[in-house]
Amino acid sequence: MHDETPLNEITCGGFEAGGMHAGIKSADFKDLGLLISRKPVHVAGLFTRNQVQAAPVVLSRQRVAAGSCRAIVANSGNANCAIGPQGLAAAREMTRRTAECLGVAEDEVLVASTGVIGQPLPMAVITRALPEMVRRVRPDGFMDFARAIMTTDTVPKLVVRNGDLDGSPFRLVGMAKGAGMIQPDMATMLAFVCTDAGAQPDILKAMLARGVNRTLNRITIDGDTSTNDSIFLMASGASRARIATKAQTARFQEVLDDLLLELAKLLVKDGEGATKLAEIRVVGAVCNSDAHQVAMTVANSPLVKTALFGEDANWGRVLAAAGRAGIAFDPEQASISFADEVIFKNGRWSGQAVESRVTKIIRRPEFTITINLHRGDGQDTVYTSDFSVEYVRINADYRS
Amino acid sequence: MHDETPLNEITCGGFEAGGMHAGIKSADFKDLGLLISRKPVHVAGLFTRNQVQAAPVVLSRQRVAAGSCRAIVANSGNANCAIGPQGLAAAREMTRRTAECLGVAEDEVLVASTGVIGQPLPMAVITRALPEMVRRVRPDGFMDFARAIMTTDTVPKLVVRNGDLDGSPFRLVGMAKGAGMIQPDMATMLAFVCTDAGAQPDILKAMLARGVNRTLNRITIDGDTSTNDSIFLMASGASRARIATKAQTARFQEVLDDLLLELAKLLVKDGEGATKLAEIRVVGAVCNSDAHQVAMTVANSPLVKTALFGEDANWGRVLAAAGRAGIAFDPEQASISFADEVIFKNGRWSGQAVESRVTKIIRRPEFTITINLHRGDGQDTVYTSDFSVEYVRINADYRS
Repeated sequence: MHDETPLNEITCGGFEAGGMHAGIKSADFKDLGLLISRKPVHVAGLFTRNQVQAAPVVLSRQRVAAGSCRAIVANSGNANCAIGPQGLAAAREMTRRTAECLGVAEDEVLVASTGVIGQPLPMAVITRALPEMVRRVRPDGFMDFARAIMTTDTVPKLVVRNGDLDGSPFRLVGMAKGAGMIQPDMATMLAFVCTDAGAQPDILKAMLARGVNRTLNRITIDGDTSTNDSIFLMASGASRARIATKAQTARFQEVLDDLLLELAKLLVKDGEGATKLAEIRVVGAVCNSDAHQVAMTVANSPLVKTALFGEDANWGRVLAAAGRAGIAFDPEQASISFADEVIFKNGRWSGQAVESRVTKIIRRPEFTITINLHRGDGQDTVYTSDFSVEYVRINADYRS
Repeated sequence: MHDETPLNEITCGGFEAGGMHAGIKSADFKDLGLLISRKPVHVAGLFTRNQVQAAPVVLSRQRVAAGSCRAIVANSGNANCAIGPQGLAAAREMTRRTAECLGVAEDEVLVASTGVIGQPLPMAVITRALPEMVRRVRPDGFMDFARAIMTTDTVPKLVVRNGDLDGSPFRLVGMAKGAGMIQPDMATMLAFVCTDAGAQPDILKAMLARGVNRTLNRITIDGDTSTNDSIFLMASGASRARIATKAQTARFQEVLDDLLLELAKLLVKDGEGATKLAEIRVVGAVCNSDAHQVAMTVANSPLVKTALFGEDANWGRVLAAAGRAGIAFDPEQASISFADEVIFKNGRWSGQAVESRVTKIIRRPEFTITINLHRGDGQDTVYTSDFSVEYVRINADYRS
């Protein structure tokens, strides 16, 4: 169930949030965010699988294992990554200072950072801002937090879902930042999901892993994954809703997946320079993992992505990308559709009439490309953006 | 040994070549090429590993197995791919008509096509042009052939190398087209190498496979591979040089590899919209294939490639791309250099003085990025181009 409350008035029982400009970024943008609970909440986290892991990832991964926390402090403008041992010291210092201001234990505070790699975190700036940051958290401060974690994102990403468990209503509030380096395994994505439902950490962890696998691991912008990816799921138990039985877990999972899919799509739509959201659906594969492999290869093909930008229904590039995915299939048996128009079938083009209709479909901001391999029942869907001139401009100029 | 003869006067004993405008392309560009020998020559071929294989690939793969041929007819402007059974019929027809004009057997003629996928080959246009094409082949017509196979290439690619075997001089002449869809496994690359040395087909095949693996399979422009990749090595034996012993094979291989590497670099330099040629060298890996995996991941990273275009020495992106290659290493032990400037070592940036020097290096048109994983003796090198605004423009507009 969607919520009608304006996003900047959204609350989620047990949580407070906020964001401010501390001075990490040179411009007057928010760059420091804080998410807290007055009582310990249960928490689960998932982190990047990149061999290079930023200091906040290393620290939060350790601490989240305890299964509960009181706060997450986050910053944009600096990834606190690849700066040697001082990186971990800075991440620790950031949580220690936050803990002091909140009057809680240091290891009850988690941390997430995003931004440029290889430059020391400006700790003095953060330390100076933290007391004010703590004063600014409010029950309806989620939008400020969402703004504080933005990097090249053009819009803050805040999604709300309501549900109920055995008659007890619950709410989920999710915030994410993405924009670049987005590919499975979560990319430079920071995401924070709060719920007022109650659940044990092991249940939270299992639900988060399932949900991410179905949603955020199914999107790609440029095939790059980052050193800082982190997603947290926190459950305050402030509502009466409880997730304990199999049925309750299934019900909550449905709402969680819906929220995560919405966040995932928002990330792709706001991909750097993106003008299109394409759903790449592969069906008829021998198994689901074959389908995934083909879908990801098509979704990451620069030639497919530039054709999407050019609004060119270039099914030849889709076919050629599918063909190099390393999965056996017979092109003579395969078909390719844009929305429900089959443009390629029985080894050949469907002709000018279909092409004209497909050319209209590809002008839409969102559409589905379906590749049917006609070999079995395996299927998978991934979401991708186009590759635009703007993508290159943004990424050629990022540090300068 | 390089040759001083102007490229449009180059000859190679036993071969004649030519190129002309037949009318496959709408503009007045050459689009039909023919390479012949008056006597049968030994031949070896390697072809795309894409699941989707164009009709000329299917036909030439069959015929090259015989180990000898008399001619290769090639066209640009149309890939003769993904048009159903009529594709193979058209490829056969193209060789049959060529054979008729030459007075040889149909199965002595090989064929290669490149261009747009999914549109029927305009056979009438080709048939009409073939008698004239046969009249136009000349011993010094290699440059015309090189022009006839161009698609989005901006320059024809013709490379000559001379060598000698036991006092008998020999020559190698190589022509290639590339530009887009370049990634290992040869990409939409057509390449044709002629030598006046003599060798049995099995020796030619082994040398070609080794040479391609060391050169053309080590380049990437956009990670896409095509349906039409083909490379042919033909030996006329018109000179006295013979390749039979181990020592002769090794000596010829050296010259062949040198020619293929030069062709490979020309392809990357002329990559669509490319402004840079970067050599990505990975050393210190546990094994060579780990090194290859890391090098290819870095070489294909859109974030690395856009940074190259922006002349931004963004080692953080190099490190992050290496980290997602799926190969274990300790970032604290790894180092990254641009030319011989070590910008990242012991888990951290080397500081502003080094950065300033690296910023100068990255302004050069060609440079090496070395990633040392400090884990073993495995190493590999690949060549890549940058990702420019022009790349997106070219590929967004290709069919329109």
